[in-house]
Amino acid sequence: MPEKSNFILIEGIAQRAVYEQEVEMVERKGKGHPDTLADNVSEAVCRELCNYYLKSYGSILHHNVDKALIVGGRSAPSFGGGTVCEPIYVVVAGRAVTHVMKGGSIDVVPIGNIALRAMRECIRRTFRHLNLDEDIILDYKIKQGSADLVKVYEIGEKVPLANDTSFGVGYAPLTDTEKLVLEVERMLNSDEYKKKNPAVGEDVKVLAVRRRRKVDLTVACAMISRYIKNMDDYIKAKEDVKEDVLKLASNYELDVDVEVNAADKPSLGLIYLTVTGTSAEAGDDGNTGRGNRANGLITPNRYMSLEAVAGKNPVSHIGKIYNIVSTNIARKVYEETRKVKEVYVHMLSRIGYPIDKPLVVSVKVVPQDGVSLGGLKYDIESIVEGELSNVLRVRGEILNKPFEC
Amino acid sequence: MPEKSNFILIEGIAQRAVYEQEVEMVERKGKGHPDTLADNVSEAVCRELCNYYLKSYGSILHHNVDKALIVGGRSAPSFGGGTVCEPIYVVVAGRAVTHVMKGGSIDVVPIGNIALRAMRECIRRTFRHLNLDEDIILDYKIKQGSADLVKVYEIGEKVPLANDTSFGVGYAPLTDTEKLVLEVERMLNSDEYKKKNPAVGEDVKVLAVRRRRKVDLTVACAMISRYIKNMDDYIKAKEDVKEDVLKLASNYELDVDVEVNAADKPSLGLIYLTVTGTSAEAGDDGNTGRGNRANGLITPNRYMSLEAVAGKNPVSHIGKIYNIVSTNIARKVYEETRKVKEVYVHMLSRIGYPIDKPLVVSVKVVPQDGVSLGGLKYDIESIVEGELSNVLRVRGEILNKPFEC
Amino acid sequence: MPEKSNFILIEGIAQRAVYEQEVEMVERKGKGHPDTLADNVSEAVCRELCNYYLKSYGSILHHNVDKALIVGGRSAPSFGGGTVCEPIYVVVAGRAVTHVMKGGSIDVVPIGNIALRAMRECIRRTFRHLNLDEDIILDYKIKQGSADLVKVYEIGEKVPLANDTSFGVGYAPLTDTEKLVLEVERMLNSDEYKKKNPAVGEDVKVLAVRRRRKVDLTVACAMISRYIKNMDDYIKAKEDVKEDVLKLASNYELDVDVEVNAADKPSLGLIYLTVTGTSAEAGDDGNTGRGNRANGLITPNRYMSLEAVAGKNPVSHIGKIYNIVSTNIARKVYEETRKVKEVYVHMLSRIGYPIDKPLVVSVKVVPQDGVSLGGLKYDIESIVEGELSNVLRVRGEILNKPFEC
Amino acid sequence: MPEKSNFILIEGIAQRAVYEQEVEMVERKGKGHPDTLADNVSEAVCRELCNYYLKSYGSILHHNVDKALIVGGRSAPSFGGGTVCEPIYVVVAGRAVTHVMKGGSIDVVPIGNIALRAMRECIRRTFRHLNLDEDIILDYKIKQGSADLVKVYEIGEKVPLANDTSFGVGYAPLTDTEKLVLEVERMLNSDEYKKKNPAVGEDVKVLAVRRRRKVDLTVACAMISRYIKNMDDYIKAKEDVKEDVLKLASNYELDVDVEVNAADKPSLGLIYLTVTGTSAEAGDDGNTGRGNRANGLITPNRYMSLEAVAGKNPVSHIGKIYNIVSTNIARKVYEETRKVKEVYVHMLSRIGYPIDKPLVVSVKVVPQDGVSLGGLKYDIESIVEGELSNVLRVRGEILNKPFEC
Repeated sequence: MPEKSNFILIEGIAQRAVYEQEVEMVERKGKGHPDTLADNVSEAVCRELCNYYLKSYGSILHHNVDKALIVGGRSAPSFGGGTVCEPIYVVVAGRAVTHVMKGGSIDVVPIGNIALRAMRECIRRTFRHLNLDEDIILDYKIKQGSADLVKVYEIGEKVPLANDTSFGVGYAPLTDTEKLVLEVERMLNSDEYKKKNPAVGEDVKVLAVRRRRKVDLTVACAMISRYIKNMDDYIKAKEDVKEDVLKLASNYELDVDVEVNAADKPSLGLIYLTVTGTSAEAGDDGNTGRGNRANGLITPNRYMSLEAVAGKNPVSHIGKIYNIVSTNIARKVYEETRKVKEVYVHMLSRIGYPIDKPLVVSVKVVPQDGVSLGGLKYDIESIVEGELSNVLRVRGEILNKPFEC
Repeated sequence: MPEKSNFILIEGIAQRAVYEQEVEMVERKGKGHPDTLADNVSEAVCRELCNYYLKSYGSILHHNVDKALIVGGRSAPSFGGGTVCEPIYVVVAGRAVTHVMKGGSIDVVPIGNIALRAMRECIRRTFRHLNLDEDIILDYKIKQGSADLVKVYEIGEKVPLANDTSFGVGYAPLTDTEKLVLEVERMLNSDEYKKKNPAVGEDVKVLAVRRRRKVDLTVACAMISRYIKNMDDYIKAKEDVKEDVLKLASNYELDVDVEVNAADKPSLGLIYLTVTGTSAEAGDDGNTGRGNRANGLITPNRYMSLEAVAGKNPVSHIGKIYNIVSTNIARKVYEETRKVKEVYVHMLSRIGYPIDKPLVVSVKVVPQDGVSLGGLKYDIESIVEGELSNVLRVRGEILNKPFEC
Repeated sequence: MPEKSNFILIEGIAQRAVYEQEVEMVERKGKGHPDTLADNVSEAVCRELCNYYLKSYGSILHHNVDKALIVGGRSAPSFGGGTVCEPIYVVVAGRAVTHVMKGGSIDVVPIGNIALRAMRECIRRTFRHLNLDEDIILDYKIKQGSADLVKVYEIGEKVPLANDTSFGVGYAPLTDTEKLVLEVERMLNSDEYKKKNPAVGEDVKVLAVRRRRKVDLTVACAMISRYIKNMDDYIKAKEDVKEDVLKLASNYELDVDVEVNAADKPSLGLIYLTVTGTSAEAGDDGNTGRGNRANGLITPNRYMSLEAVAGKNPVSHIGKIYNIVSTNIARKVYEETRKVKEVYVHMLSRIGYPIDKPLVVSVKVVPQDGVSLGGLKYDIESIVEGELSNVLRVRGEILNKPFEC
Repeated sequence: MPEKSNFILIEGIAQRAVYEQEVEMVERKGKGHPDTLADNVSEAVCRELCNYYLKSYGSILHHNVDKALIVGGRSAPSFGGGTVCEPIYVVVAGRAVTHVMKGGSIDVVPIGNIALRAMRECIRRTFRHLNLDEDIILDYKIKQGSADLVKVYEIGEKVPLANDTSFGVGYAPLTDTEKLVLEVERMLNSDEYKKKNPAVGEDVKVLAVRRRRKVDLTVACAMISRYIKNMDDYIKAKEDVKEDVLKLASNYELDVDVEVNAADKPSLGLIYLTVTGTSAEAGDDGNTGRGNRANGLITPNRYMSLEAVAGKNPVSHIGKIYNIVSTNIARKVYEETRKVKEVYVHMLSRIGYPIDKPLVVSVKVVPQDGVSLGGLKYDIESIVEGELSNVLRVRGEILNKPFEC
């Protein structure tokens, strides 16, 4: 096991921070998007499992349900109505401890009921107009893990052992473009907004490209047919979205253009109309881990992890924990030192070693102009050490706040 | 539609290229890994569909089968033998044109047979010791797309229209660490190697962390039980892998350490033994788009796209085409100018516009020391224009070379 | 097409009516039994389809959903509580018209939503303590029929054409043993009874063997764990059932013995305890057409059809219509002539011919002592002709009364 | 437990044997019919399980896989060719012992592999032209039984205990019409016949109605498109079938008419053409237990059991064993006494009692003219006792001869 002085590696990397670069792209898939939905049902099942294990056995047992599949249905929306014809199919797959030896007898964990309950509740919370009894089929394929993995887990000491040799990536701060993209989706999917413009479905996708100060925002909104009586209503609903997004954008020192549902060809009758508010009703499929990263964004101008955070257990699964810890470290470095433009943190675990003993924590810094890296190193090391010594706290943070991919 | 001078944006970004940075992480999931398998079956179905459409209708019709799910089975490996107990379940989901109006009557496309044939052949090619008749269940959930999407496609001009507002990301060149990771997996999964050390299964995962010149390579190999008569055989097989990887690594100016199957605890009987050569036989699940990027690597120190390349149609699907085109552009810029240390290309499409008319092509360059960016701009623009004017060629490239995530 | 005098064939067959025979066996699977549940969900989907087609198109379009599968779950009942661990899985399979050409455009029939709604409502009506959101997964596999079958249907004249060469079988009257078995299950599954003895689940199976006047009734009742706090409660609930059944039986001139849950071995802890009231929660599976015949009974001392009545369309499907018409004919012959001890009716259709033109109607009669068959023939022929001329009325009868297998 | 003199009940029932009655109906679904296929895959899985348990543990462990579902596919046959478009889906459901405690450790029974292997081999043997890799998806849903049932089994003495209170029914002899129906299907599905008239698919259904000496035989044959180049070929193939059936029928003293594929309307292009030889390729679905009884026939003029024989374990499952034993008894009574026209045997078990101690064996006899029942009773009782004392032998009979529903 490397010493602290070995495993924390701090370096300066680049002159131009992303916000200083000429071009930046950012995307966010809203909560009703099939990929986000796949994330959310995976995470919902994970949390319900955590709660069940905690309540029944005093600790979270091994599980990993980070593989889901959403198979879109078929629908026939029409102005003022329409129907889903083939339901959406959702399956969460993965592993979990299904049998627990307790006091000489074997307990069966009701995985199936836990999974169905969690998925159903998650979908109920996500959509206003998806009929849970008719428009969707919920299924699960969660099995006992291989004997070996379970044994690894059982050997565990106080600090859990890493489940894999794997990494997490985080950065700070968000650029204005990133903040804008996050806020646009959150606004359009807020309870208040749904009251104001109820036709806007939960499947909202926001994509921004910034060229210098000019930002083109493309917003795709699945409009809900019951609120749209005719083409005029549709056009009005889109215009309202555009106006509201522009108003929000006016808080930023960016020159923002907005296009809503860019693929529409109203003259051909091609518009983005849905019965339920999600494109999953008619053909869009989804998988866990294919959408937003842990910070809620897809950022091709940033270093990212490909690990799905959703559905992984918050005890020993590096793909979840280190993504969150590295982001926490990055935020602290940015906020507490106040001397860096940008900071990227990569953490690498070693399978079978305690999760507070990573193999490497790499901190890459773009210092503010005139700041020398040398003077920051001690502070950064302290932040890293502090977060590692508190790594068990992350579990509680995860379980106690609402999940949002 | 922006003019050329508008849409190609070239800038310099950073002083230190990745190979110059102190820490670098690289991962590759081998062809037998559940995520790679999900990619490969998606792509296999996509290609079989392309071939069928081309043969039957002279052009590739709309499809997108980039969502697969692998649900691991359960197995009972033992020295010298063992058996799979619950088969692996594989399903490919997505959309495809299922009915074609042809000469007044409606042709039904045999999607089911095409999908099963392609998946079966893909898995047959991947594994030597997975019994296709007993160890695996193949399924598909591919439906007609929504009417709207099909219509968009039919309107198409000569140059296909982008299916979405979406982006692709590419870079060049590979670092030595990246090359090493690629080569290690390819060696261990080569036909020659399987003859030499047949116990090494197809599920090979390679992860490297470089700290300055020092590289720690973690290799996870699913060993195949029929070739492993006892613990000594197992240890020997691992040692052979280590030795062979070290030998390969000696071609690089890197100081390489190798650890094989780091989670093993032989004294507890915990070793990485499988019947079939993949961890999917006993609990590891997979999704499309969760593993290697288009260049075969997972590179958290690089800009990446989150789009799955596998399973997307090569005609209009930006998530596939622009990932490949941007990589091609990056390679050409690197190889033809010979004046950049690194180059990153981000391409953004606009839904409904021809794919050779992207909204933005962003080229970010780390010039070689002493090279001014100004002098390179003309050459880079020419390369971008050349690749765009040849964008239709990419389709052929995709279909004609073996797929390998 | 044979003339009336040809196709109605009346004959005497036996001296001893079933009630006069020494041994008689009768069985009824209650509404919560997995096979009955399979019947009921098939029929529920059929009826919902009928209603949808009638409402949307003015006539019932072709369908046949007479194949269902119930895969039992797993559960952990315990005195006073317990839980389902793996949900029950229910799938209804079959064929239905999914696309209708209407006014130049193609309507999509929302088969999936219709099926899920009907199944869910059926199960909701059946069980008091099965949690529809967690204890069960509902699925469907209903596809467009082969083109040929649809065409046959569309050619149809006023009187629908038989869908198959197939037969129906009916008889009258019921023996006392048969009536008793019917009444026992109906009592135990009545709303009033559930108030009195709520522990009695819906999965009730009644089997009677009569030897001369002595009847052994075996009653299997899935007891519901939330109402059973301990073994004494369980024994009490069984005793109550026994007592109530004996009381009901006292209305019959039979010497009745009752045994409840004969497989119990309380000393080994083996009792018939369930969380939900059905054995499907823990291992009993079901298929459509495997339980009660159209008259609600399984009668191995009677001529029976093997056709499932449940799930077949009531317009053209002989396996449903002729089973009902033949039973109607038998009842009329018995009730109106008042001169037969027993009567059996077999009806055979000819595919492609109107359903009111059967190939054969065979009426087999056990006349009352001293009655000559010759004198009955005219009346029987008139009854047959009358029922055939009213054959379209059967459809309404089917749709208007609650289905009960 | 009743004494012998109590539990064997012999009586005379009727004057007219079925062959003397004026009307008789008989049906047989050939081996390629979806219901027969469901039976055959259930039974194939059962037998493979028996063999596995015997080989591994020296005895057959509890299982019951008598619930299958065949969901028909979709196909596009054409003269000389065609293709399956959506594969047939086959799932076998049920229960089996999945874990066995052996020498201190727990063996996992590879249920999944056993099931898939058995199903695949069964289907391979059934069809000549169904592509196992593309035209069909095989699945299973076989789970550990409820703890209770397993325990019942484990307690077992030498003679297994009945799994249920249930009955079996048998009769003898077959009428000429019954023999004819059996032979017609067997001829048309014989290897020799397939060489002579290869266009005749395996999905053959034969239905006979006898009116006095006149028999109308309706034969439905799924013709195989690759052998049928045009309408003339089709008509020729049907004529050959008709001629061959008539020739076979000439061995019987019956006046036989034959109609092949009665639903055809060649002028409308409606003929019974398939790619694979089974109607399951395009819409016909199947369930276990819905077709032929244990003697290979559906006989609505006979007493029948509704229990599926296929898929039930041959050790303790009354629904299988008593159907076979009762048929054996009936045959012996008929053949050895040579004094009865017909004999029906009903056997009733009592759950938890040894299977050689039925609650009732009811033998109903139609004596030959002039024979008094009294003189036969002793012989019949001896036959019943003999068969019961040999009841364990039935298991071997079942496992050693090819299954054929």
